[in-house]
Amino acid sequence: MFETAATTLDWLGVIVFTVTGALVASRKEMDIVGFAVLGTVTGIGGGTLRDLLLGSPVFWTREPAYLLTCLAVSAAVFFAAHIPQSRYRYLLWLDALGLALFAVAGSERAWQAGVGATVAVAMGVITATVGGIIRDLLGGESPVILSREIYASAALAGAITFVALTAAGGPRELAVGAGFLVGLLVRAASLRFGWALPRYRPRPGRPV
Amino acid sequence: MFETAATTLDWLGVIVFTVTGALVASRKEMDIVGFAVLGTVTGIGGGTLRDLLLGSPVFWTREPAYLLTCLAVSAAVFFAAHIPQSRYRYLLWLDALGLALFAVAGSERAWQAGVGATVAVAMGVITATVGGIIRDLLGGESPVILSREIYASAALAGAITFVALTAAGGPRELAVGAGFLVGLLVRAASLRFGWALPRYRPRPGRPV
Amino acid sequence: MFETAATTLDWLGVIVFTVTGALVASRKEMDIVGFAVLGTVTGIGGGTLRDLLLGSPVFWTREPAYLLTCLAVSAAVFFAAHIPQSRYRYLLWLDALGLALFAVAGSERAWQAGVGATVAVAMGVITATVGGIIRDLLGGESPVILSREIYASAALAGAITFVALTAAGGPRELAVGAGFLVGLLVRAASLRFGWALPRYRPRPGRPV
Repeated sequence: MFETAATTLDWLGVIVFTVTGALVASRKEMDIVGFAVLGTVTGIGGGTLRDLLLGSPVFWTREPAYLLTCLAVSAAVFFAAHIPQSRYRYLLWLDALGLALFAVAGSERAWQAGVGATVAVAMGVITATVGGIIRDLLGGESPVILSREIYASAALAGAITFVALTAAGGPRELAVGAGFLVGLLVRAASLRFGWALPRYRPRPGRPV
Repeated sequence: MFETAATTLDWLGVIVFTVTGALVASRKEMDIVGFAVLGTVTGIGGGTLRDLLLGSPVFWTREPAYLLTCLAVSAAVFFAAHIPQSRYRYLLWLDALGLALFAVAGSERAWQAGVGATVAVAMGVITATVGGIIRDLLGGESPVILSREIYASAALAGAITFVALTAAGGPRELAVGAGFLVGLLVRAASLRFGWALPRYRPRPGRPV
Repeated sequence: MFETAATTLDWLGVIVFTVTGALVASRKEMDIVGFAVLGTVTGIGGGTLRDLLLGSPVFWTREPAYLLTCLAVSAAVFFAAHIPQSRYRYLLWLDALGLALFAVAGSERAWQAGVGATVAVAMGVITATVGGIIRDLLGGESPVILSREIYASAALAGAITFVALTAAGGPRELAVGAGFLVGLLVRAASLRFGWALPRYRPRPGRPV
């Protein structure tokens, strides 16, 4: 049951992030191969870095269904991206959903690989944010991770929730569900209400 | 014979991409160490990511001749880059040649490592395009992969040709030669005649 | 004793580069999580790529103290960055210190892993420069590695000094100390006196 839950999160995250990558391709008016490249890189980027850092086999090299799914989803966006009224709003909300899914899925994979709690949380944040970073760098978008709202912090909150509950011996379905909800709600509240952490403020009149 | 053919492609691809990286360094008027860094990173970048993703030892860590060749080629470009009339045209055509070489060499290495056809094609595309992506990001050039012409698609065509012929049991020399030619001709035709795939077009009057 | 020396260099380098990453976060007026992300990525980025390329376990995945130190240092910078008069000058000098530390630490780790002299030098340069490259790309700063002064060359000088003395069978404390001093002095002299290597100059009146 749990293996199913974690794998389901992973699959949903890949699909959702692939859509955000393909939406960036649509904003840049790329051709269908551009959609496929940007969609796929966004969908599998975070999990790929996680697996490399853990020394695990990279997940999609053993399971071609991931790549084929990314290609199919990207192609679907190519033909359907004109339907939503505002693609950038969709992109932000899907990105929030993917962030929450991958924060838990990334921490869980790392925890299964036997690392400690700190490293597991870091892997959750890396899995959740790296796909979007690559998408924004390659697509020439302003990186969402540097936006004024709460972003990496939401992934951090979700990953900490999952790892804390798991380390405390809580039921894994609970840890997965709670981590996902915490990550999603923090990011959604930030998007909806403009929540932000206090920023560093330089002293006036000093050179930077 | 075949091992020779694949290794030859790999070596030629490294040399050709190193030249393109050093040409970008010349456009940015860097010093000779800048030439060496940008040339080497471009020459070995794609194969490095391929080996990391496959879990294979990174090819140049066992064989210092690759690094030494990249350094020598970069230094040669430092002293000879003033000779061609238009460095950017050379850069584009050499990049096309490297793309076709690496699309086949990358797929072939992946196929030898035992992955399936889909993943082998993806590794061909990654090997062929990642060096140029790093070169353009570090050199501050507009990324060739996002250009209006056919680029990643040419690598894709070459890799698919190689993998399809290999999977069909065709002679390997034929698969290598045909994959290389298909990749090169598609990219060359695109450069020469401005070939492009249809692009995504937003509906007029809608927000992006 | 030597293991202590090499590990000490590594720790110092991580701390110093974390400070430079957090200083970039302060220049961008990020929140505390932004400080933590940019500081940590800068502190561990170079060593992470080195370990991946060598096929070694990534150093911080086995030792959570590295991540926790990066977080503590980033938080300290968040609350103290207003103290220095010119943060950018601090950033450049700390970056020089980190560069010299990591050029030696990176070469030494690679040498211990059994690679040849050429590859060990390359690993020193990679370890010393990649953290700063990621910092500048993510932080939107002009990349220090592309600056007009000597930068990668200083790492190269330090790494060559260390590897040459080690390969010649010199005492390791000497090799470590000499490599560090050479790297630091070359970079410091370049910062202080504007030292630079001759740059590529295009012929006038020719297209680029």
